This record gives sequence, C-alpha cells and structure tokens, in this order.
Amino acid sequence: MKSNTDLTDRNRTPGDKLLFTPGPLTTSHSVKTAMLRDLGSRDHEFMRLVRNIRDRLLKVAGVSQSSGWEAILMQGSGTFGVESMISSVIPPTGKLLILINGAYGERIADMAKRHRIPAVLLRQPENQTHSLQKVEETLAANPDISHVAMVHSETTSGIFNPVEDLGRLAKRMGKVVLVDGMSSFGAVPLDLEAAGVDFLASSANKCIEGVPGFAIILARRQALLATDGFARTLSLDLLSQWKGLEGNGQFRFTPPTHSILAFSQALDELDAEGGPEGRQRRYQQNHRALVEGMRRLGFEPYVPAQCQGWIITTFEFPKDPKFTLETFHQKLSDKGHVIYPGKLTQVDCFRIGNVGRLFTRDMDNLVAAIREVLSEMGISTK
Amino acid sequence: MKSNTDLTDRNRTPGDKLLFTPGPLTTSHSVKTAMLRDLGSRDHEFMRLVRNIRDRLLKVAGVSQSSGWEAILMQGSGTFGVESMISSVIPPTGKLLILINGAYGERIADMAKRHRIPAVLLRQPENQTHSLQKVEETLAANPDISHVAMVHSETTSGIFNPVEDLGRLAKRMGKVVLVDGMSSFGAVPLDLEAAGVDFLASSANKCIEGVPGFAIILARRQALLATDGFARTLSLDLLSQWKGLEGNGQFRFTPPTHSILAFSQALDELDAEGGPEGRQRRYQQNHRALVEGMRRLGFEPYVPAQCQGWIITTFEFPKDPKFTLETFHQKLSDKGHVIYPGKLTQVDCFRIGNVGRLFTRDMDNLVAAIREVLSEMGISTK
Repeated sequence: MKSNTDLTDRNRTPGDKLLFTPGPLTTSHSVKTAMLRDLGSRDHEFMRLVRNIRDRLLKVAGVSQSSGWEAILMQGSGTFGVESMISSVIPPTGKLLILINGAYGERIADMAKRHRIPAVLLRQPENQTHSLQKVEETLAANPDISHVAMVHSETTSGIFNPVEDLGRLAKRMGKVVLVDGMSSFGAVPLDLEAAGVDFLASSANKCIEGVPGFAIILARRQALLATDGFARTLSLDLLSQWKGLEGNGQFRFTPPTHSILAFSQALDELDAEGGPEGRQRRYQQNHRALVEGMRRLGFEPYVPAQCQGWIITTFEFPKDPKFTLETFHQKLSDKGHVIYPGKLTQVDCFRIGNVGRLFTRDMDNLVAAIREVLSEMGISTK
Repeated sequence: MKSNTDLTDRNRTPGDKLLFTPGPLTTSHSVKTAMLRDLGSRDHEFMRLVRNIRDRLLKVAGVSQSSGWEAILMQGSGTFGVESMISSVIPPTGKLLILINGAYGERIADMAKRHRIPAVLLRQPENQTHSLQKVEETLAANPDISHVAMVHSETTSGIFNPVEDLGRLAKRMGKVVLVDGMSSFGAVPLDLEAAGVDFLASSANKCIEGVPGFAIILARRQALLATDGFARTLSLDLLSQWKGLEGNGQFRFTPPTHSILAFSQALDELDAEGGPEGRQRRYQQNHRALVEGMRRLGFEPYVPAQCQGWIITTFEFPKDPKFTLETFHQKLSDKGHVIYPGKLTQVDCFRIGNVGRLFTRDMDNLVAAIREVLSEMGISTK
C-alpha cells in the first residue's frame, strides 16, 4: 500500500503550534495518523516492519548489512540511545576520550561517570569546533585511551563538529569511534566509513521527523560483536538488543509500536523528499531564511558561519534590559510559534530549530512574529 | 474540553486484529486519536498535562502527594521502569531479596547482576505463590538484606502473588519494599500503605490501556529522597527524573509526547469506566468468559484457581502431538485474534490476555476461533 506522502504544509495538523525546537518537533499529519493502529509486537507484520526500518536506516546512512553494518532500535529518548552506546561498548579496561563543546558532550561525560568508565575530557568553548591538533596531542599523551566520543551537531549551539576529520584521526590512532549523531543523522552528510565511525546514535524524532519513543544506533558489526559482556545495564544492553532483533526479530522488551509505525511513514516521506539530500536542502533553506530575517532585525548568529550548522541556530539576547527569555518565549508561543526556551551556559542566547515539517514561509512568519513580540516588549529592532 | 470516552467496542479501530496479549494491547480508537498532535515538551500545556497525569496516577493508587507519595514517568518500556527502580534506590551497601516465580522475577535478578547489587534469590515454581514462612526464614537468615523485590501479577503464568501479606512482612522486618506492578496496577486492588510498599513500577500500556512509550513509578517520597547518589545510570536515574518533573515540570530528556497525550485520554476512559474497580470488573468478566469457554473445549488453567489472576490466563497444550504453538498462534492471528506466542519455561503452555479494550463477546469469539483452529489442525476437542 502506497502511503500518503504529501510534502507540503497542507499535510500538517490544523491547530497545532509550530515547534521551532530541536524535538519533539512538528511532524506531518500523515506521520501521526500512521499511529492509528494497534499491532502486536510479536506479529509477523510488525516484525517485517521493524526489519524494513532497520534496512532503510542503513540506507539513509549510505551503508548496508552486507557492507558490515547493523541498525538497532532502542526504547526511550535519544539520550537513552547514547547511554546504550556508552554503557555497552567500552570494556572494563577501556578509557574514553570525550570531545566536549556543549551540553551534549557534557552529558556523555556524566554517563561515563555514572558507569565508572575512566574518561579524559577535552573541552572547547561552545562556539568553537574541536581542534585536530589538540585531539591528536591528547591521544598521544594518553595511549591508554581506547574509545573516542564526539557530537556531530551540538544542539546546545547548533555548531557542527568536523566529525569526518576527527573520526579519521582517532581511527588512524587505533581508537573505536563513537558519534552522537542525534540531531544530524538523516540531514547532514557523514561518510561513516571515511570517518572511521564504529557506533552512531540518533533518534526517531530528529531529522527523520518521526515522533519520539525510541533511539537509533548504527553499529559496525565487527565492533558490535566485540562488546560481549560489556553492557552495564539490562534495558540499554546494545548487543543483546541487536541479538533479539536479529535472532527472532523481536524486541526484548515491549517496543513503542505506535512510534515505530509513525517512523515507517516518516521514512516514506524522507524518500519522497529525495532522501537525506532533499531533507538537507529544505533545512538549509529554512536556516538561510531564518538568518536573513533575523539579520534584518539586528540579530547575528552566535556560532561563526564556517562551523554553523543548519539544524538549530543560536542568537544572542538583545542588549536591551527589557528583554527576558521567558516573556519572549511565552509571547511567541501565544502567537503559535514555540522556540526552544533553554539557553546556553556561557552566553545569554536563545535557540531556534529549523527541523521538522517546517518551510521557509514558516521561518518568515516566525521572524515577523519575533518583530511583533519585541515591539510589544518595547524593544527596538533595526 | 470533555473527551470522547465511549466505552463500547464501537470505539475501536476497524481492521485491527484483537490483541489477547499482555501488551502492546488493543486500545480504544479515542486513545489513539489523542496522539494526533505535536506538543512541545517544554510548553506550559504539556507540563500541565504531565502534572495532571502524575496526580491522577496517585489517585488510581489510592494515595496522594499530601499523603507522602510521588508519581514519576520514565521513558521506555515497563522493564525500563523496573530497572530504573532497581538501579536507583538500593545503596551501594544494600542487599536485595528477590521473590521469583516467573520470568519477571528472573528479570529483576538479571538487573541486580548487571548492577552488581548483592542479591538473594528465592524461587518458587511458576504456578505457586510465595510462602510467607519461607520469606520470613530467608530474611531472618540474611539480616543484611535491606530491600525486597516482588512481582504482583506474574505475566509469565498469570499468577497473583500475595503482595499485601509479603510486603507487610518485609516492612515489619524493616525492609524497603519494591513491587513490579506492571500488569496489575490500575485493575488489581493493592493498598500501598497496608502492604508497606515503598516503590511500585508499572507501564502506560497495561491496565490503564494507554499506548507503549513510558513506564510509571510510584514512590513513597521519604523513601525516594533517601536514594540520593544511588542511581547507577543517567537515563534511568529515578530521583533526578522526579527532581526534573517536580522542579521545572520538565522531563530531563525528550518525553514521548504522543504516548503521554494518549495516556491522558486513557485515564479519562478509566474514570468513565468507574476507575480501577470498574476496570477490574470487566477484566474479571473477560477472564471468567475465557475460562468457561476454554473448559468447554477441554482446557484447564495451569495456575490453581485460588492464586489465578484475571489479567492473563495460562493453559496447557493439548496432549495431541499434532499441536504446535506456532501453527496455533498463526492460524488464530489469520482469523484476527492475536494470542501471546511465548510459552512458559517449565511446562508447555500458551497464554491469553484479558486486558485492553476487550469485552466478554471478544472472549467468546476467541474461544470459537480456537475451536475452529483446533479442528483445522485435526485436534479433537470436547
């Protein structure tokens, strides 16, 4: 059965506010209506669906089972997927280098601490990418480091780290490479083989535009098979999860069947949009429309252009003391535009996501609403 | 806005097979249509919804915040909720007694092993409840046991363990009491105070009849506050999750917003059915119709009547060597009736769930389909 894959803004749920956030995000109406079914998790139809999703995820990544890759679905949010990776693949004798330039790198450091995994933390400011030279020096100075973890698109600032260069370097120095690809997978190119990636974690609810409910882990099969006995939890045990899915085709524990049905539809719509390249094009257009519009209001992106991604964009607060993020966020929300209410730790910034079922017209409307709200707050714009 | 709470079988999604399984289960159509929205997880409306759900969960349990209880939602399946409880509340110096008479008790033992929590395992056959005397002897012989974990409704067999007596005994002996209330909460009475329960884990997708996506943990606040620093993971950290929900009203990590919307509607429908008592009544009627019908075909429940629950019922295989569970399950599924395909470890049994949006007529139709399928398989019935 061919699914409805209307890619326009007509395929949205009337009445919903638009979510300019890094997730949960605005999904198409057809993705949501795919959830209007109850499927048994051990039913053949459901197991075929999961098999199909796993194969298609590898295709999105440009790899396949026959080229040595595996896709694993893990219940929970994206963070559960990252923790599944971190807590399952590092041996008791291992040591982890964590490249940090935002909250998601810090979160990996927190995971390492919880699981008592020895770690070296390499920190950069939130608007700077990691330096190859510093990483190389750190690895050279700590030859007992076995694994390197990095974040592709740091949602904290919207910065893109040079994962291909960093991964290649780490792999050349004999390390296992772990990537948090949460907000990049599916819309930001990454050659897993060239980057020497062994494991990458993402989520159903980012660039593939499904609904939240599970995480995705891509794994080089050889690296995955080498992790037997390393998992520090039952629920997040990555190898056991794969063995279940690959063995009898079933999840070990109840899967979010409805989110998985939605995700299958979301993959259809990704295909219809021209795959990751098409998705990337739309997000880039959204990002460009946003930055141009915000510039007209006098806002500059916080992250330098050369490392600014197209997933999420960070802007510094206006200097006007009348500005408060809470009022700004609430007034925009009242007008039907939900931006991310959190702010960076180091600089007073707000963030706007370009992902989900959003179009340049939505970005233009958001900028117009921002102008109105600032005016209502008595804050002058350009 | 008053939601549609049609409690009849007209409020089901046409075309879906009926799920006679312990979950995912058949939910009402209105529960699923509640998912046709994208809500920001930091939006006030969503946070109010979560607050409301947490209060209502306590009410379902017959407790409240003012009587010292807290309700926590945790992303993932029910097992994630049980592991959140097990891995978060036992101090490094603690020791856990696990009462086992089925796969879910064994699963808790597996969790304890993963987290290196010293444990004493007390096993009973799958069709026998735990003996108070043996538990008392075990506790007396192991005074270093600090926590006792037990399963209320063991989905393996459908047996109900006498949690009130067991909990009271453990509490009298000074232990912290942990209950896996997965398939019982919301439809099997349990006086948390009388039973001395400190923590109870369940899921959105059992007797409350929501869709899968998150687990529920009820906690005595005083016991919860005493667990600072004990959590062995980041994602499943129960106290931190509570602090987030209670502090700024937000989940620490992306919640399954759609499952939560469905759950709110499911709670409306539980209320409309007369709360847990009304739900219990329907499940008991389903169970009775099933057992009577199956008896007419010559099947007897595996669990003795005095400890047989009304959530799931286990029947021994027919003696006829032409019977195979795979064919039986598939043929029933082809007729639109999905039973649980797994079997017990100790005896060849199949299991039928009575939970979800099912009615006595559905049980009668299932029995009729079982008669047909056995006849097609050349297996004689009474």
